[in-house]
Amino acid sequence: MKARIYVTLKKGVLDPQGKAIQRSLSHLGFDGVEEVRVGKFMEVRLGAMGREEAEKLLQDACRRLLANTVIEDYRIEL
Amino acid sequence: MKARIYVTLKKGVLDPQGKAIQRSLSHLGFDGVEEVRVGKFMEVRLGAMGREEAEKLLQDACRRLLANTVIEDYRIEL
Repeated sequence: MKARIYVTLKKGVLDPQGKAIQRSLSHLGFDGVEEVRVGKFMEVRLGAMGREEAEKLLQDACRRLLANTVIEDYRIEL
Repeated sequence: MKARIYVTLKKGVLDPQGKAIQRSLSHLGFDGVEEVRVGKFMEVRLGAMGREEAEKLLQDACRRLLANTVIEDYRIEL
């Protein structure tokens, strides 16, 4: 079973990496790019388990390791 | 206009960050996780432009800055 996890900064949290990318694009002449925000994206391969079990496992994993829930949101796609 | 860009390692390219995450999960007792691969995920806000223009701009930006096409694939969602 495969799953995808998206970890993004919460709204209002500064994103210096995204800002740096936006500026670099601007220097390269890509003027139409107004804002860039960067997140992480994980593709996870799970062993044999049910959908509910997988959902629970990944929720736990996000809260305990994969996301910093003070400043980040996460989304799980199964 | 908003767009999303996903940058992932090509198949066969080693992903030490993903491996480290998989091991850390295993140490925490998440035994069902067999493999993790990590990518980048960018949310981009574009100025007023047509869909085709945006597609072209982002393709260019990915090739020139956002992805290393030797080892990475990218996908654009408009």
